[in-house]
Amino acid sequence: MTGDSKPLFTKVALLGIGLIGSSMAHAMRRAGLAAHIAGYARTKETLERAARIGFANSLHDDVAACVRDADLVVLASPVGSFATLAKAIAPYLARGSILSDVGSVKTAVVRDVGPHVPEGVHFIPAHPIAGTEESGPDAGFAELFDGRWCILTPPPGTDAAAIEKLRTYWRRMGSEVDVMDPKHHDIVLAITSHVPHLIAYNIVGTADDLETVTKSEVIKYSAGGFRDFTRIAASDPTMWRDVFLNNREAVLEVLGRFGEDLSLLQRAIRWGDGDALFNLFTRTRAIRRSIIDAGQDSATPNFGRNRPKPD
Amino acid sequence: MTGDSKPLFTKVALLGIGLIGSSMAHAMRRAGLAAHIAGYARTKETLERAARIGFANSLHDDVAACVRDADLVVLASPVGSFATLAKAIAPYLARGSILSDVGSVKTAVVRDVGPHVPEGVHFIPAHPIAGTEESGPDAGFAELFDGRWCILTPPPGTDAAAIEKLRTYWRRMGSEVDVMDPKHHDIVLAITSHVPHLIAYNIVGTADDLETVTKSEVIKYSAGGFRDFTRIAASDPTMWRDVFLNNREAVLEVLGRFGEDLSLLQRAIRWGDGDALFNLFTRTRAIRRSIIDAGQDSATPNFGRNRPKPD
Repeated sequence: MTGDSKPLFTKVALLGIGLIGSSMAHAMRRAGLAAHIAGYARTKETLERAARIGFANSLHDDVAACVRDADLVVLASPVGSFATLAKAIAPYLARGSILSDVGSVKTAVVRDVGPHVPEGVHFIPAHPIAGTEESGPDAGFAELFDGRWCILTPPPGTDAAAIEKLRTYWRRMGSEVDVMDPKHHDIVLAITSHVPHLIAYNIVGTADDLETVTKSEVIKYSAGGFRDFTRIAASDPTMWRDVFLNNREAVLEVLGRFGEDLSLLQRAIRWGDGDALFNLFTRTRAIRRSIIDAGQDSATPNFGRNRPKPD
Repeated sequence: MTGDSKPLFTKVALLGIGLIGSSMAHAMRRAGLAAHIAGYARTKETLERAARIGFANSLHDDVAACVRDADLVVLASPVGSFATLAKAIAPYLARGSILSDVGSVKTAVVRDVGPHVPEGVHFIPAHPIAGTEESGPDAGFAELFDGRWCILTPPPGTDAAAIEKLRTYWRRMGSEVDVMDPKHHDIVLAITSHVPHLIAYNIVGTADDLETVTKSEVIKYSAGGFRDFTRIAASDPTMWRDVFLNNREAVLEVLGRFGEDLSLLQRAIRWGDGDALFNLFTRTRAIRRSIIDAGQDSATPNFGRNRPKPD
């Protein structure tokens, strides 16, 4: 462990500086966690935007230069790019360094990155459960991880001191930290994140396709509930495509359960079974209360979102 | 039309003083729309809470006393109670008065209330598309309708001056006003409100039932997206039971479309069709943008909800 005045890491390399990568840079600066923050992006446009914001000490269009001498390297691009990235950086990873990521799936990350990790590098996959519907380097902010959970899925036999160091790192960026098995992570996230996103994308798509209701009507009357789903359905398309392609089994399993339950509700509506509806609607209220009590959502009605003024 | 200094209505009777009824009382007071606001509730507890808040000029446990001499009577209880209420108040409705409601379905309201409306009373069903996940007289506030839409569904042949008066009433409570056919209203609301609520209730129920994921995990990691759905799934169970029992056809129709679309997505995931996923996820982003541009949601990421502090 480092002393109070010395940063936890000498050089942190962020491979990807979108919403999550740039938020990590801001959070690291807030907590003084890295002597040097290096950022890599594929496109010149992203690098220029990041340079204007100034959250990194160095910016690179070359992964080798970005990761060289880093004691923490974080893959922070869509998970579909991890295999290629891991292969490209492998020769340049420093012995004793930590290689981590922030991908929303974990079994696939172990599968895609694991084989490329050199001897002597500590590979500890991670997933901060935080985000907004925005993307890109401008979307990041230091508080994104405050009070949220970060899940680590270290392979069996991973060096305990390295795990502890990464845990300290996330804690000091504001997160609470849990450790679990990648397969369990993937089913937990299928229900708490992936399937909710899928059905949000789906209902917004359905609304867009209906012939009997115009797009203008959908927009005007969206405050009836629909608008809530459009926030999630505005999330980054590439990131989410990769999530579904890489958590297929768990997503399909949870989706199967969702469909069974929906069929029961559909039947209750068709046959006028008010008690079945009432009982479910009562049970779900308690879960909202628990989430607010756990500090994972705002207690203010309507998420406390701005009350618009009349024209 | 009234002059500037005279209230629009002499006496407005609110049959039901929960979230919507009490918000209307606050909004009427803000705009000076009624010389007298009378409130009716079934339970002593609700009446006592309303008395403490003080948004009504008189409170009643008797519908006849509440509606007597009112020039506007509004049914503001769950729609399943409308037939009984309408029958009970019919003998006491004043000639020339307006009878309206705030129910989330409209065909069923015309079916249940219409037959009881006495000659000379203007029956104009209405639906303000506004709300929060809270219920009861304490949940109301004057700004609830600001910038939201209120839909009127007057039967053919309704007095034009009465429609205009009700339109003015809602405008002065902060709403914009549209007029449409009740059947069309019900299909529009099925997609913008009812089915979104149903799938939110359903996913929260599914999460609650999974054996492989604990309730504590669902709560801790809910910031991955799930928490958004719990807000809607915390809405009033009685109100929503009645909505689904009374908009069966339109809800089942939209639910059918939702299910077809979800099957396609499921298939795209199973077969690894990344393009199909990416194309949908890109299309849905545009709808979010339109809703924000129309002033129907906050432009701030994460609905601008409070960023929680670390423990």
